[in-house]
Amino acid sequence: MKSSAWLDQIGGRLADQLRFLLEADRLKGVIRLNQIADGSRRENTAEHSWHLTLFAMVLRDYAVDPVDIWRVAQMLILHDLVEIEAGDTPLHLTLNNTDQAEREEAAADLLFGMLPDGQGIAFRALWDEFEAAESADARFAKACDRLQPILLNHVVGGGTWSVRPDFNIDMEKQLTRRIEHGSPTLWAAAEVVFADAVACGWLKPAPVTNPA
Amino acid sequence: MKSSAWLDQIGGRLADQLRFLLEADRLKGVIRLNQIADGSRRENTAEHSWHLTLFAMVLRDYAVDPVDIWRVAQMLILHDLVEIEAGDTPLHLTLNNTDQAEREEAAADLLFGMLPDGQGIAFRALWDEFEAAESADARFAKACDRLQPILLNHVVGGGTWSVRPDFNIDMEKQLTRRIEHGSPTLWAAAEVVFADAVACGWLKPAPVTNPA
Repeated sequence: MKSSAWLDQIGGRLADQLRFLLEADRLKGVIRLNQIADGSRRENTAEHSWHLTLFAMVLRDYAVDPVDIWRVAQMLILHDLVEIEAGDTPLHLTLNNTDQAEREEAAADLLFGMLPDGQGIAFRALWDEFEAAESADARFAKACDRLQPILLNHVVGGGTWSVRPDFNIDMEKQLTRRIEHGSPTLWAAAEVVFADAVACGWLKPAPVTNPA
Repeated sequence: MKSSAWLDQIGGRLADQLRFLLEADRLKGVIRLNQIADGSRRENTAEHSWHLTLFAMVLRDYAVDPVDIWRVAQMLILHDLVEIEAGDTPLHLTLNNTDQAEREEAAADLLFGMLPDGQGIAFRALWDEFEAAESADARFAKACDRLQPILLNHVVGGGTWSVRPDFNIDMEKQLTRRIEHGSPTLWAAAEVVFADAVACGWLKPAPVTNPA
Protein backbone atom coordinates (compact mmCIF):
# COMPACT_ATOMS: atom_id res chain seq x y z
CA MET A 1 0.00 0.00 0.00
CA LYS A 2 1.53 3.26 -1.13
CA SER A 3 -0.37 5.54 1.25
CA SER A 4 -2.23 4.85 4.47
CA ALA A 5 -2.99 8.44 5.46
CA TRP A 6 -6.53 7.95 4.17
CA LEU A 7 -7.06 5.02 6.55
CA ASP A 8 -5.87 7.11 9.49
CA GLN A 9 -8.29 9.83 8.43
CA ILE A 10 -11.23 7.40 8.28
CA GLY A 11 -10.17 5.82 11.55
CA GLY A 12 -12.06 3.60 14.01
CA ARG A 13 -13.91 0.39 13.18
CA LEU A 14 -14.35 1.25 9.52
CA ALA A 15 -10.62 1.75 8.93
CA ASP A 16 -9.89 -1.66 10.51
CA GLN A 17 -12.58 -3.24 8.33
CA LEU A 18 -11.29 -1.69 5.11
CA ARG A 19 -7.73 -2.76 5.99
CA PHE A 20 -9.03 -6.33 6.46
CA LEU A 21 -10.89 -6.22 3.12
CA LEU A 22 -7.73 -5.11 1.30
CA GLU A 23 -5.69 -7.81 3.03
CA ALA A 24 -8.32 -10.38 2.00
CA ASP A 25 -7.62 -9.46 -1.64
CA ARG A 26 -4.49 -11.62 -1.38
CA LEU A 27 -6.72 -14.72 -1.58
CA LYS A 28 -6.90 -14.02 -5.34
CA GLY A 29 -3.21 -14.92 -5.48
CA VAL A 30 -3.46 -18.27 -3.69
CA ILE A 31 -3.36 -20.90 -6.42
CA ARG A 32 -5.03 -24.27 -5.95
CA LEU A 33 -3.91 -27.57 -7.46
CA ASN A 34 -7.03 -28.04 -9.62
CA GLN A 35 -7.83 -26.27 -12.88
CA ILE A 36 -10.84 -24.17 -13.86
CA ALA A 37 -13.40 -25.81 -16.15
CA ASP A 38 -11.90 -24.70 -19.47
CA GLY A 39 -8.53 -26.20 -18.47
CA SER A 40 -6.70 -22.95 -19.26
CA ARG A 41 -5.15 -22.43 -15.82
CA ARG A 42 -5.27 -23.41 -12.17
CA GLU A 43 -8.01 -22.04 -9.95
CA ASN A 44 -7.37 -19.40 -7.29
CA THR A 45 -8.97 -19.62 -3.87
CA ALA A 46 -11.03 -16.41 -4.13
CA GLU A 47 -12.89 -17.52 -7.26
CA HIS A 48 -13.18 -21.03 -5.77
CA SER A 49 -14.92 -19.49 -2.73
CA TRP A 50 -17.37 -17.64 -4.99
CA HIS A 51 -18.13 -20.83 -6.89
CA LEU A 52 -18.76 -22.80 -3.69
CA THR A 53 -21.19 -20.17 -2.43
CA LEU A 54 -23.09 -20.46 -5.70
CA PHE A 55 -23.07 -24.26 -5.27
CA ALA A 56 -24.65 -23.85 -1.82
CA MET A 57 -27.32 -21.45 -3.16
CA VAL A 58 -28.25 -23.79 -6.00
CA LEU A 59 -28.00 -27.13 -4.18
CA ARG A 60 -29.41 -26.18 -0.76
CA ASP A 61 -32.45 -28.45 -1.10
CA TYR A 62 -30.20 -31.53 -1.07
CA ALA A 63 -28.82 -30.91 2.44
CA VAL A 64 -29.60 -33.98 4.56
CA ASP A 65 -30.57 -31.88 7.60
CA PRO A 66 -32.22 -28.43 7.61
CA VAL A 67 -29.57 -25.73 7.19
CA ASP A 68 -29.38 -21.98 7.74
CA ILE A 69 -28.20 -21.19 4.23
CA TRP A 70 -26.83 -17.75 5.15
CA ARG A 71 -24.58 -19.36 7.78
CA VAL A 72 -23.47 -21.93 5.18
CA ALA A 73 -22.70 -19.13 2.70
CA GLN A 74 -20.70 -17.15 5.25
CA MET A 75 -18.64 -20.24 6.07
CA LEU A 76 -17.87 -20.72 2.37
CA ILE A 77 -16.92 -17.06 1.86
CA LEU A 78 -14.59 -17.20 4.90
CA HIS A 79 -13.40 -20.81 5.02
CA ASP A 80 -10.19 -20.47 2.99
CA LEU A 81 -9.10 -16.95 4.06
CA VAL A 82 -6.44 -18.53 6.27
CA GLU A 83 -4.66 -19.64 3.08
CA ILE A 84 -3.47 -16.03 2.68
CA GLU A 85 -1.02 -16.79 5.47
CA ALA A 86 -0.92 -20.58 5.58
CA GLY A 87 -1.07 -21.37 1.83
CA ASP A 88 -3.29 -23.92 0.12
CA THR A 89 -2.86 -27.52 1.30
CA PRO A 90 -4.17 -29.66 -1.56
CA LEU A 91 -6.43 -32.51 -0.44
CA HIS A 92 -4.55 -34.87 -2.74
CA LEU A 93 -1.14 -34.05 -1.26
CA THR A 94 -1.95 -33.86 2.45
CA LEU A 95 0.01 -36.84 3.67
CA ASN A 96 2.99 -34.90 4.98
CA ASN A 97 1.30 -31.72 6.20
CA THR A 98 1.25 -32.49 9.87
CA ASP A 99 1.57 -28.82 10.84
CA GLN A 100 -1.32 -27.63 8.62
CA ALA A 101 -3.80 -27.26 11.49
CA GLU A 102 -1.34 -25.22 13.56
CA ARG A 103 -0.47 -22.92 10.66
CA GLU A 104 -4.13 -22.34 9.88
CA GLU A 105 -5.01 -21.63 13.51
CA ALA A 106 -2.27 -19.00 13.66
CA ALA A 107 -3.48 -17.49 10.38
CA ALA A 108 -7.05 -17.34 11.70
CA ASP A 109 -5.83 -15.54 14.85
CA LEU A 110 -3.98 -13.01 12.71
CA LEU A 111 -6.63 -12.35 10.05
CA PHE A 112 -9.82 -12.37 12.10
CA GLY A 113 -7.92 -10.40 14.73
CA MET A 114 -7.76 -7.48 12.28
CA LEU A 115 -11.53 -6.97 12.64
CA PRO A 116 -13.39 -5.16 15.42
CA ASP A 117 -13.99 -7.42 18.40
CA GLY A 118 -17.55 -8.66 17.88
CA GLN A 119 -17.06 -9.21 14.18
CA GLY A 120 -13.69 -10.94 14.43
CA ILE A 121 -15.05 -13.28 17.07
CA ALA A 122 -18.17 -14.10 15.05
CA PHE A 123 -16.18 -14.85 11.89
CA ARG A 124 -13.69 -16.94 13.82
CA ALA A 125 -16.53 -18.97 15.34
CA LEU A 126 -17.94 -19.65 11.85
CA TRP A 127 -14.50 -20.75 10.66
CA ASP A 128 -14.03 -23.03 13.68
CA GLU A 129 -17.48 -24.53 13.09
CA PHE A 130 -16.65 -25.20 9.43
CA GLU A 131 -13.36 -26.84 10.37
CA ALA A 132 -15.07 -29.06 12.97
CA ALA A 133 -17.54 -30.23 10.27
CA GLU A 134 -20.09 -31.42 12.80
CA SER A 135 -23.07 -29.04 12.63
CA ALA A 136 -25.62 -29.44 9.82
CA ASP A 137 -24.50 -26.11 8.32
CA ALA A 138 -20.81 -27.07 8.37
CA ARG A 139 -21.47 -30.55 6.96
CA PHE A 140 -23.37 -29.09 4.01
CA ALA A 141 -20.69 -26.43 3.45
CA LYS A 142 -18.02 -29.17 3.45
CA ALA A 143 -20.08 -31.20 0.99
CA CYS A 144 -20.04 -28.27 -1.46
CA ASP A 145 -16.29 -27.80 -0.89
CA ARG A 146 -15.63 -31.45 -1.78
CA LEU A 147 -18.10 -31.71 -4.68
CA GLN A 148 -16.91 -28.74 -6.75
CA PRO A 149 -13.35 -30.00 -7.43
CA ILE A 150 -14.77 -33.39 -8.45
CA LEU A 151 -16.82 -31.73 -11.20
CA LEU A 152 -13.79 -29.67 -12.27
CA ASN A 153 -11.50 -32.72 -12.36
CA HIS A 154 -14.07 -34.55 -14.46
CA VAL A 155 -14.64 -31.71 -16.93
CA VAL A 156 -10.90 -31.29 -17.59
CA GLY A 157 -10.39 -35.05 -17.91
CA GLY A 158 -8.34 -35.86 -14.84
CA GLY A 159 -7.01 -32.79 -13.02
CA THR A 160 -5.82 -33.55 -9.49
CA TRP A 161 -6.71 -37.23 -9.98
CA SER A 162 -3.53 -37.44 -12.09
CA VAL A 163 -0.99 -35.88 -9.72
CA ARG A 164 -0.05 -39.18 -8.08
CA PRO A 165 0.57 -42.20 -10.29
CA ASP A 166 -0.96 -44.63 -7.77
CA PHE A 167 -4.12 -42.60 -7.19
CA ASN A 168 -7.40 -44.52 -7.73
CA ILE A 169 -11.15 -44.32 -7.18
CA ASP A 170 -10.98 -45.91 -3.74
CA MET A 171 -8.54 -43.24 -2.54
CA GLU A 172 -10.69 -40.51 -4.08
CA LYS A 173 -13.79 -41.83 -2.31
CA GLN A 174 -11.89 -41.87 0.95
CA LEU A 175 -10.93 -38.19 0.50
CA THR A 176 -14.42 -37.04 -0.45
CA ARG A 177 -16.82 -39.33 1.39
CA ARG A 178 -17.72 -36.55 3.81
CA ILE A 179 -20.02 -35.26 1.06
CA GLU A 180 -22.36 -38.02 2.23
CA HIS A 181 -22.51 -36.50 5.74
CA GLY A 182 -23.89 -33.29 4.26
CA SER A 183 -25.94 -34.71 1.41
CA PRO A 184 -26.45 -38.37 0.42
CA THR A 185 -28.03 -37.10 -2.84
CA LEU A 186 -24.88 -35.20 -3.79
CA TRP A 187 -22.73 -38.17 -2.78
CA ALA A 188 -24.74 -40.39 -5.11
CA ALA A 189 -24.10 -37.85 -7.89
CA ALA A 190 -20.38 -37.86 -7.06
CA GLU A 191 -20.34 -41.65 -7.38
CA VAL A 192 -21.84 -41.34 -10.87
CA VAL A 193 -19.07 -38.88 -11.77
CA PHE A 194 -16.37 -41.22 -10.40
CA ALA A 195 -17.73 -44.19 -12.37
CA ASP A 196 -17.84 -42.12 -15.56
CA ALA A 197 -14.28 -40.88 -14.93
CA VAL A 198 -13.06 -44.47 -14.55
CA ALA A 199 -14.89 -45.46 -17.74
CA CYS A 200 -13.22 -42.56 -19.57
CA GLY A 201 -9.76 -43.44 -18.22
CA TRP A 202 -9.39 -40.23 -16.16
CA LEU A 203 -9.43 -41.97 -12.76
CA LYS A 204 -7.86 -45.34 -12.08
CA PRO A 205 -10.19 -48.18 -11.05
CA ALA A 206 -9.97 -49.87 -7.68
CA PRO A 207 -6.97 -52.20 -7.54
CA VAL A 208 -7.81 -55.86 -8.15
CA THR A 209 -7.16 -57.98 -5.08
CA ASN A 210 -6.11 -61.52 -6.00
CA PRO A 211 -7.28 -64.26 -3.62
CA ALA A 212 -4.30 -66.01 -1.99
CA MET B 1 -17.17 -31.02 -21.65
CA LYS B 2 -15.73 -34.30 -22.88
CA SER B 3 -18.53 -36.52 -21.62
CA SER B 4 -22.12 -35.77 -20.62
CA ALA B 5 -23.30 -39.35 -20.12
CA TRP B 6 -22.93 -38.84 -16.37
CA LEU B 7 -25.34 -35.86 -16.47
CA ASP B 8 -27.91 -37.95 -18.32
CA GLN B 9 -27.51 -40.65 -15.71
CA ILE B 10 -28.06 -38.19 -12.83
CA GLY B 11 -30.97 -36.59 -14.69
CA GLY B 12 -33.78 -34.32 -13.48
CA ARG B 13 -33.38 -31.09 -11.51
CA LEU B 14 -29.94 -31.98 -10.16
CA ALA B 15 -28.47 -32.52 -13.65
CA ASP B 16 -29.78 -29.12 -14.75
CA GLN B 17 -28.32 -27.52 -11.64
CA LEU B 18 -24.89 -29.13 -12.08
CA ARG B 19 -24.87 -28.08 -15.74
CA PHE B 20 -25.60 -24.49 -14.63
CA LEU B 21 -22.83 -24.61 -12.02
CA LEU B 22 -20.29 -25.78 -14.60
CA GLU B 23 -21.44 -23.09 -17.04
CA ALA B 24 -21.04 -20.48 -14.27
CA ASP B 25 -17.36 -21.45 -14.03
CA ARG B 26 -16.81 -19.32 -17.15
CA LEU B 27 -17.13 -16.19 -14.97
CA LYS B 28 -13.54 -16.93 -13.85
CA GLY B 29 -12.47 -16.08 -17.40
CA VAL B 30 -14.25 -12.71 -17.63
CA ILE B 31 -11.53 -10.11 -17.09
CA ARG B 32 -12.37 -6.71 -15.61
CA LEU B 33 -10.59 -3.45 -16.35
CA ASN B 34 -9.27 -2.96 -12.80
CA GLN B 35 -6.32 -4.75 -11.21
CA ILE B 36 -6.14 -6.82 -8.03
CA ALA B 37 -4.53 -5.16 -5.01
CA ASP B 38 -0.96 -6.34 -5.61
CA GLY B 39 -1.07 -4.86 -9.15
CA SER B 40 0.10 -8.14 -10.68
CA ARG B 41 -2.85 -8.65 -13.04
CA ARG B 42 -6.41 -7.62 -13.84
CA GLU B 43 -9.26 -8.96 -11.73
CA ASN B 44 -11.71 -11.57 -12.98
CA THR B 45 -15.41 -11.30 -12.27
CA ALA B 46 -15.71 -14.47 -10.18
CA GLU B 47 -13.11 -13.38 -7.61
CA HIS B 48 -14.61 -9.85 -7.73
CA SER B 49 -18.00 -11.34 -6.78
CA TRP B 50 -16.43 -13.19 -3.85
CA HIS B 51 -14.73 -10.01 -2.66
CA LEU B 52 -17.98 -8.01 -2.85
CA THR B 53 -19.82 -10.60 -0.79
CA LEU B 54 -17.11 -10.31 1.86
CA PHE B 55 -17.49 -6.51 1.70
CA ALA B 56 -21.22 -6.86 2.38
CA MET B 57 -20.62 -9.24 5.31
CA VAL B 58 -18.06 -6.93 6.90
CA LEU B 59 -19.72 -3.58 6.19
CA ARG B 60 -23.39 -4.47 6.70
CA ASP B 61 -23.79 -2.18 9.72
CA TYR B 62 -23.24 0.87 7.51
CA ALA B 63 -26.30 0.28 5.32
CA VAL B 64 -28.51 3.37 5.52
CA ASP B 65 -31.72 1.30 5.71
CA PRO B 66 -32.17 -2.11 7.34
CA VAL B 67 -31.14 -4.85 4.91
CA ASP B 68 -31.68 -8.59 4.62
CA ILE B 69 -28.00 -9.42 4.36
CA TRP B 70 -28.58 -12.87 2.82
CA ARG B 71 -30.56 -11.27 -0.01
CA VAL B 72 -27.73 -8.74 -0.47
CA ALA B 73 -25.18 -11.56 -0.57
CA GLN B 74 -27.17 -13.55 -3.13
CA MET B 75 -27.43 -10.47 -5.35
CA LEU B 76 -23.67 -10.04 -5.19
CA ILE B 77 -22.96 -13.72 -5.96
CA LEU B 78 -25.33 -13.58 -8.96
CA HIS B 79 -25.11 -9.99 -10.18
CA ASP B 80 -22.36 -10.38 -12.79
CA LEU B 81 -23.16 -13.89 -14.07
CA VAL B 82 -24.62 -12.33 -17.22
CA GLU B 83 -21.07 -11.27 -18.14
CA ILE B 84 -20.44 -14.89 -19.18
CA GLU B 85 -22.53 -14.13 -22.25
CA ALA B 86 -22.54 -10.34 -22.40
CA GLY B 87 -18.96 -9.58 -21.36
CA ASP B 88 -17.81 -7.04 -18.78
CA THR B 89 -18.79 -3.44 -19.51
CA PRO B 90 -16.33 -1.29 -17.57
CA LEU B 91 -17.95 1.57 -15.67
CA HIS B 92 -15.23 3.88 -16.96
CA LEU B 93 -15.86 3.03 -20.62
CA THR B 94 -19.66 2.89 -20.72
CA LEU B 95 -20.34 5.86 -22.97
CA ASN B 96 -20.88 3.88 -26.15
CA ASN B 97 -22.51 0.75 -24.78
CA THR B 98 -26.07 1.56 -25.66
CA ASP B 99 -26.95 -2.10 -26.17
CA GLN B 100 -25.53 -3.27 -22.83
CA ALA B 101 -28.93 -3.60 -21.13
CA GLU B 102 -30.36 -5.64 -24.01
CA ARG B 103 -27.36 -7.97 -24.12
CA GLU B 104 -27.50 -8.52 -20.38
CA GLU B 105 -31.25 -9.20 -20.41
CA ALA B 106 -30.74 -11.84 -23.10
CA ALA B 107 -27.89 -13.38 -21.09
CA ALA B 108 -30.04 -13.47 -17.96
CA ASP B 109 -32.82 -15.26 -19.90
CA LEU B 110 -30.32 -17.82 -21.15
CA LEU B 111 -28.40 -18.47 -17.91
CA PHE B 112 -31.18 -18.40 -15.32
CA GLY B 113 -33.28 -20.36 -17.81
CA MET B 114 -30.90 -23.30 -17.33
CA LEU B 115 -32.17 -23.76 -13.76
CA PRO B 116 -35.36 -25.54 -12.62
CA ASP B 117 -38.37 -23.25 -12.79
CA GLY B 118 -38.75 -21.96 -9.23
CA GLN B 119 -35.02 -21.45 -8.79
CA GLY B 120 -34.41 -19.75 -12.12
CA ILE B 121 -37.29 -17.37 -11.49
CA ALA B 122 -36.09 -16.54 -7.98
CA PHE B 123 -32.51 -15.85 -9.14
CA ARG B 124 -33.74 -13.77 -12.05
CA ALA B 125 -35.90 -11.70 -9.68
CA LEU B 126 -32.86 -11.03 -7.46
CA TRP B 127 -30.84 -9.98 -10.50
CA ASP B 128 -33.63 -7.68 -11.74
CA GLU B 129 -33.89 -6.13 -8.27
CA PHE B 130 -30.14 -5.52 -8.16
CA GLU B 131 -30.23 -3.90 -11.60
CA ALA B 132 -33.13 -1.64 -10.61
CA ALA B 133 -31.11 -0.46 -7.57
CA GLU B 134 -34.19 0.77 -5.71
CA SER B 135 -34.77 -1.58 -2.77
CA ALA B 136 -32.68 -1.17 0.38
CA ASP B 137 -30.99 -4.52 -0.30
CA ALA B 138 -30.12 -3.60 -3.89
CA ARG B 139 -28.87 -0.13 -2.93
CA PHE B 140 -26.49 -1.59 -0.36
CA ALA B 141 -25.32 -4.29 -2.79
CA LYS B 142 -24.65 -1.58 -5.39
CA ALA B 143 -22.74 0.45 -2.80
CA CYS B 144 -20.39 -2.50 -2.21
CA ASP B 145 -20.02 -3.01 -5.99
CA ARG B 146 -18.95 0.61 -6.43
CA LEU B 147 -16.74 0.89 -3.33
CA GLN B 148 -14.48 -2.12 -3.95
CA PRO B 149 -12.92 -0.90 -7.25
CA ILE B 150 -12.25 2.50 -5.65
CA LEU B 151 -10.11 0.84 -2.97
CA LEU B 152 -8.34 -1.28 -5.60
CA ASN B 153 -7.65 1.74 -7.83
CA HIS B 154 -6.23 3.57 -4.85
CA VAL B 155 -4.01 0.73 -3.66
CA VAL B 156 -2.46 0.25 -7.12
CA GLY B 157 -1.97 3.99 -7.56
CA GLY B 158 -4.45 4.82 -10.31
CA GLY B 159 -5.91 1.77 -12.04
CA THR B 160 -9.01 2.53 -14.07
CA TRP B 161 -8.73 6.23 -13.11
CA SER B 162 -5.89 6.37 -15.68
CA VAL B 163 -7.60 4.79 -18.70
CA ARG B 164 -8.91 8.08 -20.06
CA PRO B 165 -6.57 11.08 -20.14
CA ASP B 166 -9.36 13.56 -19.29
CA PHE B 167 -10.72 11.57 -16.36
CA ASN B 168 -10.98 13.52 -13.08
CA ILE B 169 -12.44 13.38 -9.58
CA ASP B 170 -15.72 15.00 -10.61
CA MET B 171 -16.32 12.32 -13.24
CA GLU B 172 -15.39 9.59 -10.75
CA LYS B 173 -17.85 10.96 -8.19
CA GLN B 174 -20.55 11.01 -10.83
CA LEU B 175 -19.91 7.32 -11.62
CA THR B 176 -19.85 6.19 -8.00
CA ARG B 177 -22.23 8.52 -6.15
CA ARG B 178 -24.83 5.78 -5.84
CA ILE B 179 -22.73 4.51 -2.93
CA GLU B 180 -24.43 7.30 -0.98
CA HIS B 181 -27.88 5.81 -1.69
CA GLY B 182 -26.82 2.62 0.05
CA SER B 183 -24.54 4.03 2.72
CA PRO B 184 -23.66 7.68 3.45
CA THR B 185 -20.90 6.42 5.78
CA LEU B 186 -19.23 4.47 2.99
CA TRP B 187 -19.66 7.42 0.63
CA ALA B 188 -17.86 9.64 3.13
CA ALA B 189 -15.04 7.08 3.23
CA ALA B 190 -14.92 7.03 -0.59
CA GLU B 191 -14.56 10.81 -0.57
CA VAL B 192 -11.56 10.49 1.74
CA VAL B 193 -10.02 7.99 -0.70
CA PHE B 194 -10.67 10.31 -3.67
CA ALA B 195 -9.05 13.28 -1.90
CA ASP B 196 -6.01 11.18 -1.00
CA ALA B 197 -5.75 9.91 -4.58
CA VAL B 198 -5.78 13.48 -5.89
CA ALA B 199 -3.12 14.47 -3.35
CA CYS B 200 -0.98 11.51 -4.47
CA GLY B 201 -1.42 12.37 -8.16
CA TRP B 202 -3.36 9.18 -9.00
CA LEU B 203 -6.64 10.94 -9.84
CA LYS B 204 -6.89 14.31 -11.56
CA PRO B 205 -8.41 17.18 -9.58
CA ALA B 206 -11.61 18.91 -10.64
CA PRO B 207 -10.98 21.18 -13.62
CA VAL B 208 -10.60 24.83 -12.68
CA THR B 209 -13.44 26.91 -14.11
CA ASN B 210 -12.29 30.42 -15.03
CA PRO B 211 -14.90 33.11 -14.56
CA ALA B 212 -15.72 34.75 -17.90
